[in-house]
Amino acid sequence: MTAVTDTIRNGVDTEQLFSTLDLIKDQPELARFQFRATNRWIDGSHNRSTIKAFYAAGGEDTTRSEEFVIDAGEPAILLGSDTGPNPAEHLLHALAACLTTSIVYVAAARKVQLTSVQSTLTGDMDVRGALGVDDEPRNGFERIAVAFRITGNAPEEKLREVVERAQKRSAVYDMVTNGVPVAVEMTTD
Amino acid sequence: MTAVTDTIRNGVDTEQLFSTLDLIKDQPELARFQFRATNRWIDGSHNRSTIKAFYAAGGEDTTRSEEFVIDAGEPAILLGSDTGPNPAEHLLHALAACLTTSIVYVAAARKVQLTSVQSTLTGDMDVRGALGVDDEPRNGFERIAVAFRITGNAPEEKLREVVERAQKRSAVYDMVTNGVPVAVEMTTD
Repeated sequence: MTAVTDTIRNGVDTEQLFSTLDLIKDQPELARFQFRATNRWIDGSHNRSTIKAFYAAGGEDTTRSEEFVIDAGEPAILLGSDTGPNPAEHLLHALAACLTTSIVYVAAARKVQLTSVQSTLTGDMDVRGALGVDDEPRNGFERIAVAFRITGNAPEEKLREVVERAQKRSAVYDMVTNGVPVAVEMTTD
Repeated sequence: MTAVTDTIRNGVDTEQLFSTLDLIKDQPELARFQFRATNRWIDGSHNRSTIKAFYAAGGEDTTRSEEFVIDAGEPAILLGSDTGPNPAEHLLHALAACLTTSIVYVAAARKVQLTSVQSTLTGDMDVRGALGVDDEPRNGFERIAVAFRITGNAPEEKLREVVERAQKRSAVYDMVTNGVPVAVEMTTD
């Protein structure tokens, strides 16, 4: 019983975590991953992504049994009918999800048992940019604020160290703060 | 009938679109928006965002009747149980959704009737960065590729102009390519 309790922490199998890290240290070529999304326009601001296949650890991963489906939309003021969160809100979700997962994994590795992780994210935007009314405001958020409220069996200082380490290792935090080269291609019939 | 056909294009009310643009040109202070997401950790890599309230055009927008709920997770190889797309996949969805919506709106404004917009996005990552195994690879995608297949009642050159303009005005494309300042705070009990 004790062994099981020690291995699974915050819902993360730490034995599997450390053996994954060892494996990738030994065979860095297994660290090449490719994630994918396919999107289809439905009508107006309504479009839908499907997500399933990905490449990992030397081959196509086939463990996923189901395809994920996510809808996007816009609220009425941005000419939509709320068919889903809007794309900028989806980006906030991606950032929240990645920082939270990083916090949970780092805490598991550092023997911190978490009891709750909650966050509120805000993104401020001057929509004149995206609407093409004015060239001065940028199109996206000028800034994003993330407020975490975290509880667990560690003093505040240790929890802060976990958050700092998670920030340093979060894939989406890296992308959103530093940017990524994006190549866009188009074909037609 | 002709008037209605002319006004609604690609599911976008172009009359409302142009009147929104005129209003914001006249009163730029109405262009201040704030979008939000609240996230809660559930277990392991499973966390959930709820999205509803936002600030727009001088006040809290109260037109949304429902709260959106989006789950995130990780596949088995990243120590999860597929409770949702992973955060990096959510970022690909946010980018696909924003570029697609921008294409649809730009086409509507330019009198291009679209018949289909599909896209496939790929993001390449060396997971040694995010897993903390090696400091050299970045945490996020090294590059993202977006392949659109678009059909509509316009020649290829005009469709390309629509895509180029959409790229120049997409909020998420701006954020993902150029980055955004992100401030992270933490409190505990």
